[in-house]
Parts: sequence; structure tokens; C-alpha cells
Amino acid sequence: MNGAESLVHTLLASGVDTVFANPGTSEMHFVAALDRIPGMRCVLGLFEGVVTGAADGYARMAERPAATLLHCGPGLANGLANLHNARRARTPMVNIVGDQATYHRPLDAPLTADTEGWARPVSGWTRTAANSATVGADAAQAVQAAMTAPGQIATLILPSDSSWDEGGIVAAPLPPPPAALADTGTIEAIARILRSGDPAMFIMSGRALRADSLAVAGGICAKSGARMMAQTSNGRIERGAGRMPIERVPYPVDQAIKALSGLKHIILVGAVAPVGFFAYPGKPGRMYPDDCIVHVLARPDQNGPAALAVLADTLGAERAVAPSAPRGERATGAITSEAVANTLSALMPEGAVIVDESVTFGRGLFPLTRGAAPHDWLALTGGAIGDGLPMSTGAAVGAPGRRVITLQADGSAMYTVQALWTQAREKLDVTTIILANRKYAILLGELAGVGANPGRTALDMLDLGNPNLNWCSIADGMGVESARADTMERFAELLETANRRSGPFLIELMT
Amino acid sequence: MNGAESLVHTLLASGVDTVFANPGTSEMHFVAALDRIPGMRCVLGLFEGVVTGAADGYARMAERPAATLLHCGPGLANGLANLHNARRARTPMVNIVGDQATYHRPLDAPLTADTEGWARPVSGWTRTAANSATVGADAAQAVQAAMTAPGQIATLILPSDSSWDEGGIVAAPLPPPPAALADTGTIEAIARILRSGDPAMFIMSGRALRADSLAVAGGICAKSGARMMAQTSNGRIERGAGRMPIERVPYPVDQAIKALSGLKHIILVGAVAPVGFFAYPGKPGRMYPDDCIVHVLARPDQNGPAALAVLADTLGAERAVAPSAPRGERATGAITSEAVANTLSALMPEGAVIVDESVTFGRGLFPLTRGAAPHDWLALTGGAIGDGLPMSTGAAVGAPGRRVITLQADGSAMYTVQALWTQAREKLDVTTIILANRKYAILLGELAGVGANPGRTALDMLDLGNPNLNWCSIADGMGVESARADTMERFAELLETANRRSGPFLIELMT
Repeated sequence: MNGAESLVHTLLASGVDTVFANPGTSEMHFVAALDRIPGMRCVLGLFEGVVTGAADGYARMAERPAATLLHCGPGLANGLANLHNARRARTPMVNIVGDQATYHRPLDAPLTADTEGWARPVSGWTRTAANSATVGADAAQAVQAAMTAPGQIATLILPSDSSWDEGGIVAAPLPPPPAALADTGTIEAIARILRSGDPAMFIMSGRALRADSLAVAGGICAKSGARMMAQTSNGRIERGAGRMPIERVPYPVDQAIKALSGLKHIILVGAVAPVGFFAYPGKPGRMYPDDCIVHVLARPDQNGPAALAVLADTLGAERAVAPSAPRGERATGAITSEAVANTLSALMPEGAVIVDESVTFGRGLFPLTRGAAPHDWLALTGGAIGDGLPMSTGAAVGAPGRRVITLQADGSAMYTVQALWTQAREKLDVTTIILANRKYAILLGELAGVGANPGRTALDMLDLGNPNLNWCSIADGMGVESARADTMERFAELLETANRRSGPFLIELMT
Repeated sequence: MNGAESLVHTLLASGVDTVFANPGTSEMHFVAALDRIPGMRCVLGLFEGVVTGAADGYARMAERPAATLLHCGPGLANGLANLHNARRARTPMVNIVGDQATYHRPLDAPLTADTEGWARPVSGWTRTAANSATVGADAAQAVQAAMTAPGQIATLILPSDSSWDEGGIVAAPLPPPPAALADTGTIEAIARILRSGDPAMFIMSGRALRADSLAVAGGICAKSGARMMAQTSNGRIERGAGRMPIERVPYPVDQAIKALSGLKHIILVGAVAPVGFFAYPGKPGRMYPDDCIVHVLARPDQNGPAALAVLADTLGAERAVAPSAPRGERATGAITSEAVANTLSALMPEGAVIVDESVTFGRGLFPLTRGAAPHDWLALTGGAIGDGLPMSTGAAVGAPGRRVITLQADGSAMYTVQALWTQAREKLDVTTIILANRKYAILLGELAGVGANPGRTALDMLDLGNPNLNWCSIADGMGVESARADTMERFAELLETANRRSGPFLIELMT
């Protein structure tokens, strides 16, 4: 058995049975091993940003890591932006990065690069497999590291001789340590704060945003008068009819400050204290009042749902029953954010997975879909645009039988447009809604936000027209059927068409 | 004057008047400064790999650095693969990477990343601008570093407050130090070796591959009986009718070993000793005989052409007159590498710039175009595929009035396909020839090379069919006119059409 074979066997034994891949020469023995060993689903991406973003989306839904297969330092580099996003979502992932043979590396062949150096900033665990005998053990540790709460990226660099040399040894799975529990003293201190009646807000992320935990947190809020919000961007929120709704800390600084004004206590559950996405001249970096105290009920690596449950018991709080919310009706007339939200809310199938890279246009989509059929909402967590199409690709692999709907800004879609081809190849049930405003709309707002007054040069750099992108042509080029919607009526019709079919469909919505 | 304005003024004063940009929020003051200060050409790319690859192509032709404008660590990361290629080409470049405000960075907002850590492996010079008062001086040093022989990448990270704060100071240009000269003793020792009659070969790269220097080197070879070859991949070769032809060390290991067999001396001129692109089981890493001695006439940072000139004088060698070579005739019949090469050779306009990311199909294109009209040949230097479309985009900006012809493998084209849009927007004279074989052909060869016998899973991972990419649709989606060629006759017709027009054109050649 060679190193590559021991690696594939170990990954399978450890519960990793899906690999998103963009292989090169140094990975050929791994590819050959995939041939010989049944059980691994291989999904090809035509660019590494597709591969890493898909592995992120997969794990958010499947709740276990996928592997990626990348080629040398530059292949890893192409995937870093979506690894950054996955790191911010605390997604478990195992990167296998093929690289130069150990003895060839000192010769500094053209493709040689600082693979470890590029991997470390996004990886909680990084290792180069020294030889074929250790690859199996390395892989078991990589999976364990990936699954250690709250989830992290593990990168195993695989020199080609560690892959092709004989002497591979399959390693037994290593169970990840259980997520730590919050200590009783902390929970009691927070209970006292809540009983005090001081203005308090839970800010939550991670597993606390699943339906069960939201009901528990909602009950605590009902009992104590505290409020709750989700972080601005979260890996996954379970929401929709019958589930406790939760708003997110707004992205625009002024709105965030307003939402958090008057608070005396912020209680973090798997979240970080709210800070601005960027600094702006004359505006604060922290979004909460200076005299507000930040408490930690559960760190991201702790078990937030368990801490909430203990807190609810301490307070004698019942689970909240979700208030009913209107489902929304399909809209007619002008294409506005509100109209799109209402139509989406009306037509979203039960169990849909919404992948949200809607950026500017989409800020209104979240609040108005709270009454839709139960669904999951997956957001861009690290701010590195180009995650939407890949994440939906992986989410569809990780949640078979559920419709994935991608709310996708056009500028951001271009970064990883190659994902459409993988959706076509794998016949994934993904509806991509391109919100085609033909500009970097967010940057026009940001330019105003920093006090700059744009002229011709600046406007040209934020404009995606001249020439206009034709998304139906692009989709056709990659084998995805598509149609354009110039009216709300047509949008609703196309959304229904997409719901009924299997496989991918793209709607170019002229916003 | 704010920091951003001092930066733009300093870049212009230092001779940098072109910026390839994919800006984000943290760069808005820089964008605003570009508005207010005339003289900088701004070229927008819809993905950072386009931006960095274009800056590479620009500098290879313009012989001075362009700036790039990138957004935070992940924006830089998206550009790293083509920065890796540019580093291997020893291309001068100045990256401006906007980032979090100095005081906002400790808050670890979502887009915060290890920007410096990602920059260092590809940059000869890296600095974070501490404040607005130093930005001008930082920029002057960055340009100096970029232009220091043989050319390198300088990365200036620009926190947004260093950009927007007042107190900017324009810095005077800093001239780069002249390239070092080889010492006389070295040149004389090499002259003695050449006089000995032992089998010797020059291996050349960098400036030694310009027409003048090739004539000098050719004369030395004629006088001494030595041979000469170019590195496998080179930033730029001047070639075609009337110029001394030079072959390249072959990419396939067995062919390379054969080409260098029997040598007693290798003499490097701006090149590195030939090693395999990858290791293969049972094959050597170095391509030259064990008893062959490697001499250095000129390191990459030294003046190779000057060293060759002194060596020629020492030996009493005349400049070589290029042997005549057939121009080639437009081919008919089956679409083969040879037929494409002949047609290309026949129809290539004088002064064409050939950008070669043709990978497998294209290995035969170089030898058979030596008799074409004088042209430049720009290659993928670092092996990180996805450089062709961006490099041709930048080369067209850097060499106005010359036709750029991109020989582009289809799999590689997908990595940075967004470059087509920039070609359309800027109306660049680029003819893209997509060599559509619908597979990662090189990997099928590599899989055989490592001794693996592919099954269904492996073949699927190397196959770009299912669904087939439709390059004419993709081009249309990005505003580039295109047509498909299924015959050699049609290919010739389309190549002539493209030659006659201005602006970009794409030919999908079904190979």
C-alpha cells in the first residue's frame, strides 16, 4: 500500500467521504488511489476557489468535513479567499495539498512555493507529511483537528513521494474532544445580570442559531426582557415559519450603533463582540456603547446550546413559541429588494438552503423572508467575495434532496463563476439568482461612507457595465440553463420553473 | 494632501502610470485620489488573478512596473498564483494592498487576515505603510525595489487611515542601482572552457533572450562550437525572421535529459540550472549529466547581455547572422499542433506578442514558428496555470499598436476567464485562441508518467467534457466577439479576421 492509498483509506475510516478537487501532477497518485478504493465521491472544480468554497458549503450542511485536493502552493493560494471565509464560519475542512517530492523541493523547480507559509494563516492545523509511513496518522489527526469544536481548517501538505512510496499505514479514526461546557459560575453570573433588568442583548452565532437553541434563547429573552441578535454574518441559521426569528447586527455602522444603543450588557454565545466591518473616519470601531459590558456565556469552542439550556433552567424559562409571520406574497411591478424578498418568501420550497452573497441589494431580503417555509440561511462570513456560487455547489452536495437558492450579487459572482460548470456536471439542485445591477454597488456606498466624492475615474472603477455582462450566455457556456427576468412576474415564473426541475438553473434578475 | 494623494503623486513621479485594479472599501481614498490627480491609467479587473497577471504581462512588454490595487489579505490571496508566475519571470511590479485601518486591525473584523504573511513569499520587498506621512517615501522605495535588477515584486500594504489621513508627502523617485557586471575572471575562465572544445551549452534567460543578445550568443557558439538553449519557460523571447533562433530545454524529463546529454559544461546566463518541473519515481531531478559542471556567466541580477558582449570580444566572436527559416504556410486538413503552428507562422503579423499558455497541445507551436515575422514570445514561467488571458490583457496595455495572440489551453483558461471582460472594456487588440481539447491533457500524460493506470474516477477528474464548455458563449457573456473553428481553413480565415480588426476576438479551436 502506498502513502496515497493509506490516506484515502484513513479519510474514509474517519468519516470523510467527499473530496472537492482540482488536481495537478503532484496529486496523480492520490487520484489513482481514488480509482482503486471505492467510497469517495469526487467533485471536480475548474478553479480552486470553487473547491474550497464548495467544501465550506458542504460542511455547513453535512456537519462533517469534506476534503479538498489542491495542487502545490499556487493551487492552495487560489483557494485561500474561500478558506478565509470558511475559517470565519468555523467550518471543518481537510485540505490535501499535493506538493513537490521531499527531495525535489531543494531544487526550487518553477512551481515550488511556500505552501506551508500560505496555509498557516487560515489553518488551525498545518502539517507536511514527512513520508509514506506517516501519511495515514497525519490524515487521522487532520480530521480530528478539523472536527475539534467549533470546527477548523486542517491542511495536510502531501509531497509526491510521501504519496507514491510504499509503506503506507491506515490509521484508526481519532474522535474529536467534546466541546467544552461553560462553567456554572459564569452561567449564574449571567442569570443575575438578566434578573437585574438592565438592558441586555444576546449576540449569537454558531450552533446557537439552530432552531432548537433559538427557541431556548427566545424563552430566556421572554422571561428576562433581554433581546437577542445574530452576528452580522453567520455560517448557518435555521429559520422560517415555526422557528424563532432572529435579526442580525446590521452591516452599516450607523445602523449597528443604533441597534445596540442603550445596552448595558452584551452576552456572547459562540459569537464575537460586534465591531465594524471596516473603520471609517470619525466613527467608532466597536458598535456597542462604551459603558456596555461584554460577557461570554459560551466561547465559539464551547457548547453554546448546552449553556443556553442550563441558563434557561436557572431562570425557569420555557422554550419560546415562534410568533407567526406572514409568508409573503409574490410581488408584481417594479423589481425592488422588497418585491424580490416577498416573492422569494412566497415561493421558497420547504427545506430550501439559501446561500446569501447578495451584498448591497440583498440586505432587505433576510428580514422579509422570516415567514417563509422552514429553511437554512448560509452567509458570506469572511467578507471575501466570491463565495456564493461555490458555497451553493457544496451545500447541494452536502444536503441532497433540498433546493439550494443562491442570492448572488453580479460583481461577486464573477470571482468564482467556474462553479456553474460543477453544478451542471453534478446535476445539482441549485437555483442561482444573479442580482444584476452591473456595478459594485456596495463600493459606491463605501465611497460615500469615507467622505469621497466620486468623479469619472472612480465611477469607472465601480461600474461593471461597458460591456454589460450577459449572465445567460455565461451560464450557457458552462452548461447551465438560464433565463432573464425583467419583471417581477417573470421572476416568479422562473423561480417556480426552477423549483420544479432537478439540476441547476440560473435567473438573471435585472435589478 | 492625504496619504493616498501622496502615493499617487509619488508613483507617477517614479514612472508608474498604469494601475490594474480590483478595489474594495479600504481602497476608496486611493480611488478618490486617482480621480483628482490626472495621469494614471486605471484598468479594472473583475478578479484579482486578472489584475496581477495583467501587471506581469504589462511589465514584460513595457519594461517598467505597473501598480496593482488589491483589497485586503483575501484580495491579495486571489492574486498570488499570478504573482508567483511574475516572480519566476522576475517581473517588476508594485502591489498596493489596501487593508484595515491601523487602529481597527486589533479588533479582528471579518475581513482581517495575515496580509503581510501572504505577501512575503512572492515579494522581494514588503512593507506596511505606518501612517500618511511615510506613504510617499514607502512608494518611492517600492518602485525602486521593483526595478532593482532583474526585477522583483514590491508589496506596499496600505492601511486605510494611512490613506485618508492628511499629512502626505510626495517623495522623489529613487533610481534603482544598475545591474551588476560579471567579473573579468569569471568571463576569462568561461572563455578558456569554450576554447577547450569540451561539449558546452549556454542556458539563457532574462534579457539575454532579446534579439541583440541572441546574435552575440549565437556568434560565440559559432566560434566555439558551444550550443545554446533557453530555459524551459521564460518571461520574453525576441524571435522570428532575421533573429537568432533558440530552442528551449524541453519540459518532458526524458526529452530534457536527452537534450543535455553528453554535456561537460553548462554556462548560465540569467538562468537557473535545469531541473525537472516535478519529480517522477525513478527519474533524476537534475536534467544534466552528473559530471557536467555548471558555470555562471551572469546571475539573474547581473547584466547578462553585457557579460556576453565581453565574452564575445574575448573570443573574437562576431555577431551571428540568423539562418533563414521558412515562414510556414497556412495549413489545410486535420487540426494538429503542426498545422496550427504553420498557419500561425504564416499569418502572425509583424510585431505580434505571443502569450503562450498552450500547455500540452502547444509544445509543437514554438519550434515551427521560428520563421514567422519578428515577434515576442511570453510564456507561463511559474507553472501556476491561469496566466494566459490576464498576461495577454496586460501585454496589450503595455505594447499598444501590436497584436497580442494568446495560445490558450482550455482548462487553464477557466482559472482567470474574467480577463476577457477587461479586454472588451479596454478594446484591447488581443486574439485569444482557445485550444479546446476538453480535458486536462497534461495530467493524462502526467498520470502515465508516474506509472498510474487511470480508471473511471481518475479519468473523470481529468475530463472537462460533460458538460462541454462553450467558449463562444462565455466570450459573448463578457462582451468579446468570437467564432468557432472546426477546420484549419476556418481557423486561418478567423485569424486573418482578427488581425484586421481592432479590439479583442476569440477563436474556439476544436483540437
